[in-house]
Amino acid sequence: MKILVTGSGGMIGRKLVERLVKDKTLGGKTIEAMTLVDVVDSPIPAGAPKDTKVIVADFSEKGVAATLILDRPDVIFHLAAIVSGDAEANFEKGYKINFNGSWALFEAIRQEGEKQGEKDPYKPRFVFASTLAVFGPPFPESIPDSFATTPTSSYGTQKAMTELLLADYSRKGFLDGVGVRLPTICIRPGKPNKAASSFFSGILREPLAGQEAPLPVGDEVRHWFASPRAAVGFFITAATIDTTSLGPRRSMTMPGVSATVGEQIEALRGAAGDAAVALIKRVDDPFVSKIVQGWAGRYDAQLAGQMGFAAEKNFGEIIKVYQEDEMGQ
Amino acid sequence: MKILVTGSGGMIGRKLVERLVKDKTLGGKTIEAMTLVDVVDSPIPAGAPKDTKVIVADFSEKGVAATLILDRPDVIFHLAAIVSGDAEANFEKGYKINFNGSWALFEAIRQEGEKQGEKDPYKPRFVFASTLAVFGPPFPESIPDSFATTPTSSYGTQKAMTELLLADYSRKGFLDGVGVRLPTICIRPGKPNKAASSFFSGILREPLAGQEAPLPVGDEVRHWFASPRAAVGFFITAATIDTTSLGPRRSMTMPGVSATVGEQIEALRGAAGDAAVALIKRVDDPFVSKIVQGWAGRYDAQLAGQMGFAAEKNFGEIIKVYQEDEMGQ
Repeated sequence: MKILVTGSGGMIGRKLVERLVKDKTLGGKTIEAMTLVDVVDSPIPAGAPKDTKVIVADFSEKGVAATLILDRPDVIFHLAAIVSGDAEANFEKGYKINFNGSWALFEAIRQEGEKQGEKDPYKPRFVFASTLAVFGPPFPESIPDSFATTPTSSYGTQKAMTELLLADYSRKGFLDGVGVRLPTICIRPGKPNKAASSFFSGILREPLAGQEAPLPVGDEVRHWFASPRAAVGFFITAATIDTTSLGPRRSMTMPGVSATVGEQIEALRGAAGDAAVALIKRVDDPFVSKIVQGWAGRYDAQLAGQMGFAAEKNFGEIIKVYQEDEMGQ
Repeated sequence: MKILVTGSGGMIGRKLVERLVKDKTLGGKTIEAMTLVDVVDSPIPAGAPKDTKVIVADFSEKGVAATLILDRPDVIFHLAAIVSGDAEANFEKGYKINFNGSWALFEAIRQEGEKQGEKDPYKPRFVFASTLAVFGPPFPESIPDSFATTPTSSYGTQKAMTELLLADYSRKGFLDGVGVRLPTICIRPGKPNKAASSFFSGILREPLAGQEAPLPVGDEVRHWFASPRAAVGFFITAATIDTTSLGPRRSMTMPGVSATVGEQIEALRGAAGDAAVALIKRVDDPFVSKIVQGWAGRYDAQLAGQMGFAAEKNFGEIIKVYQEDEMGQ
């Protein structure tokens, strides 16, 4: 089978490609070819199929999507997007890449599938990386699958609109779509960044490396987490589930661990002791606090659970994944 | 004030224009100019402001939206759309008119508002005619404002996507949007049409005129209704409410009357007696029955109620409106 990955140069994209190369198969079929697309260069892991190519391109540019689809990939992992802050600061760019870019892929697939005279028309599995930012306050105690998408950012709006298209193109039989609403990924490897959510990883990652980390919010702040390894697992599951039982709701909230900052800290204590916890420095930041209070802390990911998507069971497991995958323990 | 109405040639559009001409004011301000746009000709009611013009154009064509916005209408009623069946049969056309056409209007407004050097930038009230077809089964007993939009038609998808854009453009301050999700309008004047919902009006309208009408479904079928007069009232209310209390949820389910076909028939008996009811001919139609079973029968239109939107209280009132407005009684 042929696989196309967009956003293959990003953190999750790279891990997904590594997993596919390691597995050698997807849903029981041998992976024969991979196309890795990003605006930055994508690394090709050792052991990748011979027919693996890297394309540095912006699929929201006219004609690029059609070129990518011409090969008729059986499975498309669409992870490419500009991030929330960028989409908020650059209104037109956000819609162009996150929405029109995704639509261009859907349209290229539809047009490829409508080529005449074929008895077995093209209809790939399309896995779309969505976000819990499709939701907006006021929130119930726990957010059900049936909760309205009322995003409070342009990024969330673009993802919610793409989810709607994904469902309609699936309903019409042009593609077979599954939308994966990712929890906050924790522990992100690498350096702190300017995202308001950066500290959720930082207060664990830095102390685990013997370094200090600032904590801008209170212990009571609750959030929804999964590891990078779990995120890759979500995409693999989305590529292989039987979608006939999904019905019209093609995008699902992914399972995760609901944890407060206090619970994160206790998990760190369990994994690395009091000395690690002492490296967390409380530096209240009202700006970050306010943003984070607009996020939900608990979801009832019922449909995804039924479909076989699985995340970690507690925060201790999330730390263990980081120690295994990033610290070689 | 200046008003722009798209879809002004349609049944509700014409009634809205008539109401505006009769009122002479909107939200306490004198209506000085009206622009009526449709792909068909729009009638100008007697007594319309001198500065009223009719434009026959398709605003989804390049450049048309910008032309309409150049006049800087204070209030825009955006009713133009192709109907559900047409959007389902003509995939590209549906997206072009119902979605891209609406987006072109939003973009024209944003670009007009971003013209430099103005201390009071352009930011009109934008009233968008949406639909309960943004929802899809499985339904709860009563559908709350917080229910997910999972449409099962391209038409519903296009409207739900436009609702998302409306909210984001409002949040960013480019316009001041209110989305109005209309109940099934009943009693529609005129002839039966090919819509699956046509019989909901037909079983009342035809007997009130002494004619037979087919009933393709059972008495227990429940649906959500408002009169054409109430629909016009929704648009007027949407144009004049204080949107600061709306928050991020700019599109609302409108209030209506939840009634079964059996209750419709009893209301007809109350208004026109047994002889009228005897004109309803039961002709089971499994095709229509199946479509109608995918529709919801009850909504909890809480937010709209709080904001002052009002419909009829029972089906008797809906029949009375038809007798007054269409039969001159």
